[in-house]
Amino acid sequence: MRRIDNYQPVPGEENKQQEDNGGNMPPSDPSESIPMKTLYAADGSDLHPHFGPYFSDGKRRVDYVLAYQIQKPNTVRKPSPKFGENNFIRRLRRSISMRSSRAPLQPKEDPEITAQEHQTDYHEDDKRFRRDEYEENLLETGLELEKDEGSKIPGIGFLKIHAPWHVLCREAEFMKLKMPTKKVYDVKQGGNVVEKVRLFIHKVTAPLHPKVDVSHPHSVKSLSHPFSREKQHLFDLSDKNKFFDSTTRSSIVYEVLKRTRCTKAKYSMGITSLLANGVYVSGYPLHDGDIEGVNAVPNDRKLLYEEWASYSVFYKYQPIGLIRKYFGEKVGLYFAWLGVYTQMLIPAAIVGVIVFLYGCATVDENIPSMEICDPRNNVTMCPLCDQACSYWKLVTACGTARASHLFDNPATVFFSIFMALWAVLFMEHWKRRQMRLNYIWDLTGFGEEEEDHNRADYEFRVMQKSMRLENSPPKDEKVKLTCSDRLPAYMTTVVMMCLMISVTFAIVFGVILYRISIKAALHMSSYPAARSNIRATVKTTAAIINLIIIIIMDEIYAAIARWLTTLEVPKTDKSFEQRLIFKTFILKFVNAFTPIVYLAFFRGRLVGRPGKYLYVVGSYRMEECAHSGCLMELCIQLCITMLGKQLIQNNLFEIGIPKIKKLLRQRKSEMDTKQEEELNKTLRRHEKDHFLGPFIGLNPEYMEMIIQFGMVTLFVASFPLAPLFALLNNIIEIRLDAKKFVTELRRPIAAKAKDIGIWYNLLRGLSKVAVIVNAFVISFTSDFIPRLVYQYTYSPDGTLHGFTNHTLAFFNVSDFQPGTDPLEPMHLGYKVDMCRYKDYREPPWSTTPYDFSKEFWAILAARLAFVIVFQNVVMLMSDFVDWLIPDIPKDISLQMHKEKILMVELFMKEEQGKRLTMRERNTPQQPRSRPNSHTNCV
Amino acid sequence: MRRIDNYQPVPGEENKQQEDNGGNMPPSDPSESIPMKTLYAADGSDLHPHFGPYFSDGKRRVDYVLAYQIQKPNTVRKPSPKFGENNFIRRLRRSISMRSSRAPLQPKEDPEITAQEHQTDYHEDDKRFRRDEYEENLLETGLELEKDEGSKIPGIGFLKIHAPWHVLCREAEFMKLKMPTKKVYDVKQGGNVVEKVRLFIHKVTAPLHPKVDVSHPHSVKSLSHPFSREKQHLFDLSDKNKFFDSTTRSSIVYEVLKRTRCTKAKYSMGITSLLANGVYVSGYPLHDGDIEGVNAVPNDRKLLYEEWASYSVFYKYQPIGLIRKYFGEKVGLYFAWLGVYTQMLIPAAIVGVIVFLYGCATVDENIPSMEICDPRNNVTMCPLCDQACSYWKLVTACGTARASHLFDNPATVFFSIFMALWAVLFMEHWKRRQMRLNYIWDLTGFGEEEEDHNRADYEFRVMQKSMRLENSPPKDEKVKLTCSDRLPAYMTTVVMMCLMISVTFAIVFGVILYRISIKAALHMSSYPAARSNIRATVKTTAAIINLIIIIIMDEIYAAIARWLTTLEVPKTDKSFEQRLIFKTFILKFVNAFTPIVYLAFFRGRLVGRPGKYLYVVGSYRMEECAHSGCLMELCIQLCITMLGKQLIQNNLFEIGIPKIKKLLRQRKSEMDTKQEEELNKTLRRHEKDHFLGPFIGLNPEYMEMIIQFGMVTLFVASFPLAPLFALLNNIIEIRLDAKKFVTELRRPIAAKAKDIGIWYNLLRGLSKVAVIVNAFVISFTSDFIPRLVYQYTYSPDGTLHGFTNHTLAFFNVSDFQPGTDPLEPMHLGYKVDMCRYKDYREPPWSTTPYDFSKEFWAILAARLAFVIVFQNVVMLMSDFVDWLIPDIPKDISLQMHKEKILMVELFMKEEQGKRLTMRERNTPQQPRSRPNSHTNCV
Repeated sequence: MRRIDNYQPVPGEENKQQEDNGGNMPPSDPSESIPMKTLYAADGSDLHPHFGPYFSDGKRRVDYVLAYQIQKPNTVRKPSPKFGENNFIRRLRRSISMRSSRAPLQPKEDPEITAQEHQTDYHEDDKRFRRDEYEENLLETGLELEKDEGSKIPGIGFLKIHAPWHVLCREAEFMKLKMPTKKVYDVKQGGNVVEKVRLFIHKVTAPLHPKVDVSHPHSVKSLSHPFSREKQHLFDLSDKNKFFDSTTRSSIVYEVLKRTRCTKAKYSMGITSLLANGVYVSGYPLHDGDIEGVNAVPNDRKLLYEEWASYSVFYKYQPIGLIRKYFGEKVGLYFAWLGVYTQMLIPAAIVGVIVFLYGCATVDENIPSMEICDPRNNVTMCPLCDQACSYWKLVTACGTARASHLFDNPATVFFSIFMALWAVLFMEHWKRRQMRLNYIWDLTGFGEEEEDHNRADYEFRVMQKSMRLENSPPKDEKVKLTCSDRLPAYMTTVVMMCLMISVTFAIVFGVILYRISIKAALHMSSYPAARSNIRATVKTTAAIINLIIIIIMDEIYAAIARWLTTLEVPKTDKSFEQRLIFKTFILKFVNAFTPIVYLAFFRGRLVGRPGKYLYVVGSYRMEECAHSGCLMELCIQLCITMLGKQLIQNNLFEIGIPKIKKLLRQRKSEMDTKQEEELNKTLRRHEKDHFLGPFIGLNPEYMEMIIQFGMVTLFVASFPLAPLFALLNNIIEIRLDAKKFVTELRRPIAAKAKDIGIWYNLLRGLSKVAVIVNAFVISFTSDFIPRLVYQYTYSPDGTLHGFTNHTLAFFNVSDFQPGTDPLEPMHLGYKVDMCRYKDYREPPWSTTPYDFSKEFWAILAARLAFVIVFQNVVMLMSDFVDWLIPDIPKDISLQMHKEKILMVELFMKEEQGKRLTMRERNTPQQPRSRPNSHTNCV
Repeated sequence: MRRIDNYQPVPGEENKQQEDNGGNMPPSDPSESIPMKTLYAADGSDLHPHFGPYFSDGKRRVDYVLAYQIQKPNTVRKPSPKFGENNFIRRLRRSISMRSSRAPLQPKEDPEITAQEHQTDYHEDDKRFRRDEYEENLLETGLELEKDEGSKIPGIGFLKIHAPWHVLCREAEFMKLKMPTKKVYDVKQGGNVVEKVRLFIHKVTAPLHPKVDVSHPHSVKSLSHPFSREKQHLFDLSDKNKFFDSTTRSSIVYEVLKRTRCTKAKYSMGITSLLANGVYVSGYPLHDGDIEGVNAVPNDRKLLYEEWASYSVFYKYQPIGLIRKYFGEKVGLYFAWLGVYTQMLIPAAIVGVIVFLYGCATVDENIPSMEICDPRNNVTMCPLCDQACSYWKLVTACGTARASHLFDNPATVFFSIFMALWAVLFMEHWKRRQMRLNYIWDLTGFGEEEEDHNRADYEFRVMQKSMRLENSPPKDEKVKLTCSDRLPAYMTTVVMMCLMISVTFAIVFGVILYRISIKAALHMSSYPAARSNIRATVKTTAAIINLIIIIIMDEIYAAIARWLTTLEVPKTDKSFEQRLIFKTFILKFVNAFTPIVYLAFFRGRLVGRPGKYLYVVGSYRMEECAHSGCLMELCIQLCITMLGKQLIQNNLFEIGIPKIKKLLRQRKSEMDTKQEEELNKTLRRHEKDHFLGPFIGLNPEYMEMIIQFGMVTLFVASFPLAPLFALLNNIIEIRLDAKKFVTELRRPIAAKAKDIGIWYNLLRGLSKVAVIVNAFVISFTSDFIPRLVYQYTYSPDGTLHGFTNHTLAFFNVSDFQPGTDPLEPMHLGYKVDMCRYKDYREPPWSTTPYDFSKEFWAILAARLAFVIVFQNVVMLMSDFVDWLIPDIPKDISLQMHKEKILMVELFMKEEQGKRLTMRERNTPQQPRSRPNSHTNCV
């Protein structure tokens, strides 16, 4: 209570007094300055301040909360399973059980669950002992604490932490936090005309902007400078309570928590170890306030809820500034990125739809499909399966041929070039946006901090190792895990990854077998309705099976990746995250794209030819494509995968499971719903937040988007509607994620970040691969090149007339292998001597019958040449666009320059002022006090 | 004189007195503090201090010198040409005349020449007026000046500038210069074993290390911190004269010079404008001392001369630390880069030689050349030219076939993959080296400074423009050059660039015509000796002509690029440099590589076939390749270009011209050689340096190396000895450049740089292009793919036997176009019905005679497939290597982390100390003075 005078706005003049205060503040005797235990019980009646995030004095803000378990006599303990033996199964189970579709990628383990797991390892007494030591150390650093063990949640105690002004100052200086100074300057965006256009656009799009108050008008920005107590006069400290906002305060406190360690126990423990070992069950900063209800005074969280985390504002821009202010830069960047991605999808979706419509419009003018559908072209085709099938008329493939044209027309070639450039433009646009945000958020000059915090697992293993080494090594040689320690884990990883990838391949092969066998069975059935819908049925069921398998395997792979990474015992969270992302990405990517790659590039290529088919697993012929290529099936597969995955993941995992989890967590604390609701009104902020889910990082969100980006870019040549589907999904996704962050999860510690890190590289890699994949899809999967070659080389009149005939090779039915000729050769009503099949081969009457013909090689050369040209031209264009668009927007670089000049000016002025003062002082007439610049806040 | 007391080492305690001094220092009345004019005349006899870089008091160091012309009554003025009209020709002439092979890329114009050009524009009085104002402003900033107008060089006055301690302190703080603190720490490089291995390697390579004293042992490094007067106690200020070394001092002074402006004249002028307008003719910091002779006391320059800039130490490492200390980071990075490049060339050269030797060793086992050389294969070939030539025996091509094998064997395929990976490894290695240097040089955290200084040309143009606008715009709307102002220049650039590129193409075409016509002429000549050496003669002369044209055009293009860039009036030096580099790179690259690209990819492809040849310019047949492909000729061309270019550029331009220039400069000051030598001994430092050439930037050096890197990587598949040649050249190049920097040029201002900037991107781009080019060279220029296809598809016994026959198509001599059949059909002694030519075409008896055969298409497909596979595999491998090797070496990142922790510890300790002091002060018994941390040096 006696320290509240710190909060009086005391700029400059009273600094003497302040220094006194500061000097005395963190006394070495803890008993002197812990009024907390005596405080928490007394004031349960004083209503208002308790709902705000304040200490019981109603004035000191709670900046961070650590929750711990109080020893309850009636705790029901499940029998703890043996450690080590079924470790894997437990972890796996845990990973699966705690899923909210994304949990496996969380950077930090859910501390509560970890705590429950570890809780048998440590005695309650031991824990209390550690807590006491840790809290004492915290007091040493100047933080102020208040305990709350009589909360309405039985068995849980809370340690509320408050950072007083001098600690904030000191830490802000250490962390080199850039804070706005008093000096503001005009942000001019280009010349008069540009400015006018900008204003006009702003006016037009006004309804799209969220109604979020901005403290500064857009045209003015404060000059920022790393906070320093020696330069206090630069900053506007008139309201010290508001100078550091709640986000900054809690990240400052977290910084102190990370630095503070328990050293008296067996081995030194930081906050991460304490959390992992269940000494504390959770730690979190508090939300700003309630979203709805009686206690909901206006606050940032409520504003976010209304203007951002709501489906009703789906058409609006996101209030990125406010998101960053509330959740920190890292979360802000994620949503900014998601916003840019979604925005960029709009033109892609529009062009995609146009391309699709072009396909629809030209379907009647397409000569190849007209030729196929023309019953006068009396083409007899070779049977599609052995024995059961018979010869068939090409005209029956009319429907597929027409449908194929929708996705296999010249416009798709244009569209895949367009999308390759779109991907580059998206990257560039994002880089510029990121740069702009960096400027607005004063991150320029902020160097990415090296994560220096060892993970609890790692520390535990190191301790184990150092205990194992009996002849302890010299002190300065620190024990660490070497490669040989990790070798078994690495081996496991490699083996498991290979195994998992082969499992994926096996599953795809299984689906192929399913398709082949079902098709054969249906062909053999005598029920005509079944036979007529054979293709559609098989395709659709196979695609759905694929989808279900993909979704299931996705979950399993995520759990396995997590387990493998844990085995490797990475040193830091950052390293853990990177390894996890790497593994998850590979597994999920292979899982999602193997069926598609098979369809695009392998299906129908390994068929053989009539009379010499390729057989798998006994007597199954490898499946062929429809007459007009596999593009149609690829398209169906992509469509079902994208739609299905998004629907199931969004609805089931992202909406359903969190709801259930929240329910369960509340149920666990043994309360009725009604009681609960009533209680909810009297619960204090930190108790309410305790019921929310822990923040588990952004990686799962990013991962989902990256896979989607892959779908949009990789096979866009075969499915021009992909951007549209992605767009629709993302519009929902943004608000869904927003809702989760605002209402379902505890507030995260504001993490600083300049960029989206590894994800950018993955995006870049994907967009590079996309160029090659699209080149191959166009040249090999579609009939684009054969058509082109025919038109310009073989066609007698320069049109596509005769193309269908040109693509069909002849087969002499007498050359069938014995036992494979159709059982009903007279199915069509006449005797067939010669049937046709789709390939470029020599006719039976040539000197080398059934060999690849010259046309085959010429077209192959053309296909390959197209790949080379496409790949290199698109890559060149991409690099050119990349080079053309400066990474830093012109106006931003100008303003950054201006800022620098202003800064120098400011200091020069100060310098002159100082010099003047000195001179005055030297002339003995007028002794003056030192200028403000030398005051100190400690 | 009265300010010398500043130099007494006064740490901490006496700061009161110092502040007094500092406060009084820059008085507003200039007359009070310019003792210079009265000083310079008096002391011509006091010998010693004059040779050192000191003021005439022998104590204050000269940190920078500005030279200017004194009005001489007897100056001989050349009639100045009219400005504007023949502007281009003058600039062109100037660019050419001032060349030292690299001048066109210098970032700043040679101020002397510019000055001479502009000198008619300003009156001498006007200049003096400006000088006076500028010097007054300099005094205002606290610098100390001394004039020297009675020097031994008539007509030139010198303004010597000294920065006193308080200015150094202030500016160092502004510039955030990182200075070493007192705190040192151990640099541990890995575990015990690693350390031992390192020491062992160091011991073994000891003779390779230059004998340069290092102040610190390698295992200890000072913690660095941005200099701040408030944190003075952190730094070791015991010897204030040495705390800032001469390099730092001069760059600090240059910083002040850049900031100071003349404002009283028509328009505000900075130092660049003053130099460009001839107000000062040159500005430079002084060299540390003499290299040889009586006055040569040990100094850094001498050390560099002995241990670096000498051919006798060519095998040693470069003393990069010392180079950086003397010339600054930018120059240091250039030489470090050159060193890494040269070092990396060693393995490439070795492998290249091995590949070459492999070719030599297997030449006798090569089946295709054996077949060609076997006289029993009685193959009659079609004539090589119309009429004059007759049929010939394939066996006569034996020599070429054997020679071709040297450069066209499977090992070259391996070698080009090797070199692609080598390029990536080189990049990675350099990135790591750069990072290491950044760490050692304390550049981590240093952000690239935006060049904020407008160029003189730009300011002049802006002034012109603002004067043209009669209705002057509002003050805050600054006049600047818009795109429309620059449009004519841009148009000129585009047109000129296209023109120049077409000129290059035209020249290459000219050389082709030369070759064709000479060959035809020689064929027709009856002199048998000429005919036998036809091929060799033509090839070699053509290559030499190409080389000469390349070298001449290089110079012209450089001048044109410079002129075009000047036309564009870029705003800053940085922008000027970038535009210039861009243009020069394109022109030089096209110039150097067009003939090679023609040889590799176009020659011999557009020939047509017997009976239907392609004719150019009337009746010249396009030239064919030798029977075994064009690789041999490509190789000769590359060899002559590389060797010739390097020899001529190194010897003539880099050694010869600077010598001549220096001679001319000294001649100009009208002195005999003998007199001069005598005088040389009595010349003072700044006078000696005046005779040296101005520093013109590193870009020409980089450009030369980039073109060489292109030669080494782009066509390495055809010339495996390229790395060897490059290596030999670079060993000389390093020492040559070193000599130039140490002895021939004035000392440059130390420029800070974290990386080699745009050059790295160019290298990266080149190494990407190299992959594609090599893929095409292997698959299209060499016979690798046809051999492979033959061996695995067509060969009856799986060997290459019969390959030669397979590559030859048949031609019926009756199908010759009338008038093109040989005049002497019986030349070989028998009647020829059917002759052979190298191509894959149908024989005359097929249904489609002379059409491309199926083999042609199959081989084409194989070639294209190889390109795709090669390009993507190599790119993937490169990316993988890139990803595998961390950009920051492990030990460096560990040490950087350690440094950060130490820094935090240091501050925490300081913080605690401060707190303790405060508390003591608050207890009234013991009032103590404030701790050192609050002392101020101003």
